[in-house]
Amino acid sequence: MKLIRFGLPGEEKPGVATAAGMFDVSAFGEDFGEKFFETNGLARLSEWYGAHAAECPQVPAGTRLGSPILRPSKIICIGLNYADHARETNAAIPAEPIVFFKSTSALVGPNDDLVIPRNSQKTDWEVELAVVIGKKASYVEEKDALDYVAGYCLHNDYSERAFQIERGGQWVKGKSCDTFAPLGPWLATKDEIADVNNLRLWLTVNGQKMQDGNTSNFIFNVAYVVAYLSQFMTLLPGDVISTGTPAGVGLGMNPQVFLKTGDVIELGIDGLGTSKQTAVAYK
Amino acid sequence: MKLIRFGLPGEEKPGVATAAGMFDVSAFGEDFGEKFFETNGLARLSEWYGAHAAECPQVPAGTRLGSPILRPSKIICIGLNYADHARETNAAIPAEPIVFFKSTSALVGPNDDLVIPRNSQKTDWEVELAVVIGKKASYVEEKDALDYVAGYCLHNDYSERAFQIERGGQWVKGKSCDTFAPLGPWLATKDEIADVNNLRLWLTVNGQKMQDGNTSNFIFNVAYVVAYLSQFMTLLPGDVISTGTPAGVGLGMNPQVFLKTGDVIELGIDGLGTSKQTAVAYK
Repeated sequence: MKLIRFGLPGEEKPGVATAAGMFDVSAFGEDFGEKFFETNGLARLSEWYGAHAAECPQVPAGTRLGSPILRPSKIICIGLNYADHARETNAAIPAEPIVFFKSTSALVGPNDDLVIPRNSQKTDWEVELAVVIGKKASYVEEKDALDYVAGYCLHNDYSERAFQIERGGQWVKGKSCDTFAPLGPWLATKDEIADVNNLRLWLTVNGQKMQDGNTSNFIFNVAYVVAYLSQFMTLLPGDVISTGTPAGVGLGMNPQVFLKTGDVIELGIDGLGTSKQTAVAYK
Repeated sequence: MKLIRFGLPGEEKPGVATAAGMFDVSAFGEDFGEKFFETNGLARLSEWYGAHAAECPQVPAGTRLGSPILRPSKIICIGLNYADHARETNAAIPAEPIVFFKSTSALVGPNDDLVIPRNSQKTDWEVELAVVIGKKASYVEEKDALDYVAGYCLHNDYSERAFQIERGGQWVKGKSCDTFAPLGPWLATKDEIADVNNLRLWLTVNGQKMQDGNTSNFIFNVAYVVAYLSQFMTLLPGDVISTGTPAGVGLGMNPQVFLKTGDVIELGIDGLGTSKQTAVAYK
């Protein structure tokens, strides 16, 4: 099953995407947030949709998509989880996952504009596989970790490198600006993805290929990361874990390249669709 | 006005604390979360309570208190915001605020047990003044910043120092364990606090004074911090900013002292009450 949310910002309705198009499942009566996931919503929706598909209105092509999930309790990001990206940023290969948070107020739809923050000179891109948690996870073992996963999404972990690196110690300042977390187009449930640790992911800027990697190059794979994080905090249903980016970010280029107004960023992951953002100035 | 929330974990009801005791304001019909603050809830509740105080049931003394606010979108913490604390941890005085996040799943009531995480050897205390945001703040100027503040709370920013410092780069791993954010007893609205940048704050462990500071020693004061953060992210109503801790944490002692099962931690801030946690082992 592929979950979507569509409509105007703040007024999104839940839907599903199938080979036949996008369909409105508002009649199911629940949006895709913490309560939905923790009450076995995926199984309940699947059963409901099996019985009611014919009554679900089609969503017109071109309708705006929002984030495929409601605002989660947290967006947890893994830093430097691909060896080639660690090398390009002159960082050591981490001995254990590097963890930081991104403000959930950064969350937007997959094709919404990227707003370059005021005073930003170094806004950069990062295509990433995002994991959505399906049930409360605390001190989970790696062998059981995927039982706690609801599914996967495409994510662009936008990063302001000056805010992140040059402004005093911790990374969160460069990760949390509004529009810095376009998520989607859809959440693919776990059963849709044969091997989450073997997916191609890519990103272009103005049509030029910048990133072209594969999750098979993870330093720490999805099950490891879920189990690891659950040793330090409780993961709640609907929480997002963004698993790091492969080589090809602007920070790693020589000379460095950062985004400017009018740039068009497109990205995709096998089975998780594509998204497209246009960089605009803060108004 | 002093806002409280009381009752069993997850079932808390809203109330107010006055000189005459604690009173149940469930009949007002709203809990103290993002929507309450963003819809001018403080003023509406004050007016409502003025008309209905006599009908509000008294909350029995000894009733458990929860966090005085619902789970916020984020808990933002300022690091090394008192010069004496920076010195004791051998850190430089920061040129601008150091910012990190704490998982909101760490939030508990002011007198709930502190659960020492599995594999923890270095659980430490940090008495802090917490600021609660009253309305959406983005690119706010310092002179206007307090307009965006709803009020203040007492917070103990528990920190696992090995997780924070010895486990790979960013601090969030040591700040986010369950029960690491006891908040309250109450949220004091802004009008209750004459000068938020001149409040004594203190903490004892088993009756021994460990921290005894004053917010007049902030490197970056409340208005500065609110304005500063709003340059990097949108602050939402109900969000918490914890403003850093004065000297006297276990990490800074020689030899270092960390918490063990059975320890009793008490803390307080002028006008914001006191709280008390007992350290217990993870079960």
